[in-house]
Amino acid sequence: MKVKVRVWVEDDEGNPILGDGRLALLKAIEQSGSLRSATEEMGMSYRHAWGQVKKIERTMGVKIMERQVGGKEGGGSCLTKETKEFIRKFEKIKEDVARYAATKSSKF
Amino acid sequence: MKVKVRVWVEDDEGNPILGDGRLALLKAIEQSGSLRSATEEMGMSYRHAWGQVKKIERTMGVKIMERQVGGKEGGGSCLTKETKEFIRKFEKIKEDVARYAATKSSKF
Repeated sequence: MKVKVRVWVEDDEGNPILGDGRLALLKAIEQSGSLRSATEEMGMSYRHAWGQVKKIERTMGVKIMERQVGGKEGGGSCLTKETKEFIRKFEKIKEDVARYAATKSSKF
Repeated sequence: MKVKVRVWVEDDEGNPILGDGRLALLKAIEQSGSLRSATEEMGMSYRHAWGQVKKIERTMGVKIMERQVGGKEGGGSCLTKETKEFIRKFEKIKEDVARYAATKSSKF
C-alpha cells in the first residue's frame, strides 16, 4: 500500500492560492509565453484562465504576468520573477511532502 | 499562507483504498453500529456504501464488518479489529503528514 498526497497552498482565511490545477496553468503560461496559448494547450477557456490568474494575484498580492513587447516573436506574456520563485518553492514543497508521505507507506 | 494536504492510501496498482470519504463511512459504521444507520446519517445510499465497503475489502484483503447477534440492541454490525487498527494507523499518518506540511508554510 502507498500513502499518497495532494498538496495546495491557502491564505490565512482558507482561500485556495495554488494547487495542481493553477500550477499547471502557470507552467503552461511559462512554457508557451502567452495566456492565450496556455489556455489553448490546456483546453481551458480564456475567461476561466484569466479569472484564475486574477485570483492568484489577489490572494498572493503579487503580479503574475508581465507583457513582453516586441522581439522576434512579437511580444507575449511571461511570468514575473516572484511567480517563478513561488512555483519553484511550491514544487519543492510538493516533492518534500510526497516523499515524507511515502515513508509512511511501510506503516501498513 | 498555509500548506494543506489531502492524504489517501492506494494499493500497488494505484487503486484507492482509503481516503477521507471512506474514512467517514467507516467511522460512522463504528459509531452507529450498523451500515444502515451510517448511510442514513451520511445521506448516502445503502447501495453505494455497500459497494464502498466491498471495494475496501477487496483492495485491503480483510473483512471490514462483523455481525453482532443479539444483545440489548438486537444485533448490528461492528468493525473488525483489523479495520479499527487500519483506521487508527491512517488517522495517525494523516496527522503526521498534515503536521509536516504545516511546517513548510513558513517557506513562503
